[in-house]
Amino acid sequence: MTSIKNNHEKWMKAAFREAEKAFEQDEVPIGAVVVKNGIIIGRGYNQCESLNDPTAHAEIIAITSAANTIKNWRLKDCQLYVTKEPCPMCAGALVNARINMVVFGMYDEKEGCCGSLYQLCRDNRFKHQLTVKGGIMEDPCTLIIHEFFKKQRKKD
Amino acid sequence: MTSIKNNHEKWMKAAFREAEKAFEQDEVPIGAVVVKNGIIIGRGYNQCESLNDPTAHAEIIAITSAANTIKNWRLKDCQLYVTKEPCPMCAGALVNARINMVVFGMYDEKEGCCGSLYQLCRDNRFKHQLTVKGGIMEDPCTLIIHEFFKKQRKKD
Repeated sequence: MTSIKNNHEKWMKAAFREAEKAFEQDEVPIGAVVVKNGIIIGRGYNQCESLNDPTAHAEIIAITSAANTIKNWRLKDCQLYVTKEPCPMCAGALVNARINMVVFGMYDEKEGCCGSLYQLCRDNRFKHQLTVKGGIMEDPCTLIIHEFFKKQRKKD
Repeated sequence: MTSIKNNHEKWMKAAFREAEKAFEQDEVPIGAVVVKNGIIIGRGYNQCESLNDPTAHAEIIAITSAANTIKNWRLKDCQLYVTKEPCPMCAGALVNARINMVVFGMYDEKEGCCGSLYQLCRDNRFKHQLTVKGGIMEDPCTLIIHEFFKKQRKKD
């Protein structure tokens, strides 16, 4: 169990480093990585503001990047690590991409769809279901988002 | 009422032309347009296979394109027309993009999230809700998809 938890933390740290890039660029600090066979094949951080794109969430960018790496849109046997519970768009993207497991940091009671408001990843009416694990490195993943909004409020 | 219905059909025809482009490129034929103040500001058709990208649904491409056109990720006062009921990913994207209304052709009982399996666009726990109208040009939007799968089965 310890080694599984350590592995989760290892990859969540990589996702967290992506969130830090978002923070530095004045974007809501959420980061994600896609892992296959112990290798990161896709990374992403939230870039909605800089790209003027409401779909530019960390997960979407990491999934697109991973699929491009392996030249296949089906991300079989891949895990996605993300610092915040995915929204409906991103939870749907995980299902569409055939991701094997999603591991997230902070729970999101406002729009989380991997357990909080909905559990879109486990609905067997969809073509694909995946394993869901929340709360890994929850404190730092939550803190960086709180810090971001504190900084934004000071600016206003 | 007649003029509203005519307008819906006018824009759905534009979405349908996008679906035809997908058909010609051996992609599941689904098309979408984003309309603002009576002008198309974004178009898209399903390109999952050609782009190797599970997020390359018609709606996501049309939304990204529209947001790029107006240089703002908030697509206020915009309508999205799409030939098939959006999946969870795309329904979530409509909410994230603050789209004002979604109009779709074919209902999708397998993964539709604008009424069939879920109604993600009307959940007032999310930051934004939008008007949903289904069944516009339902027959041609359904037929083109059936034709596509018939063609694919012949290939196999």
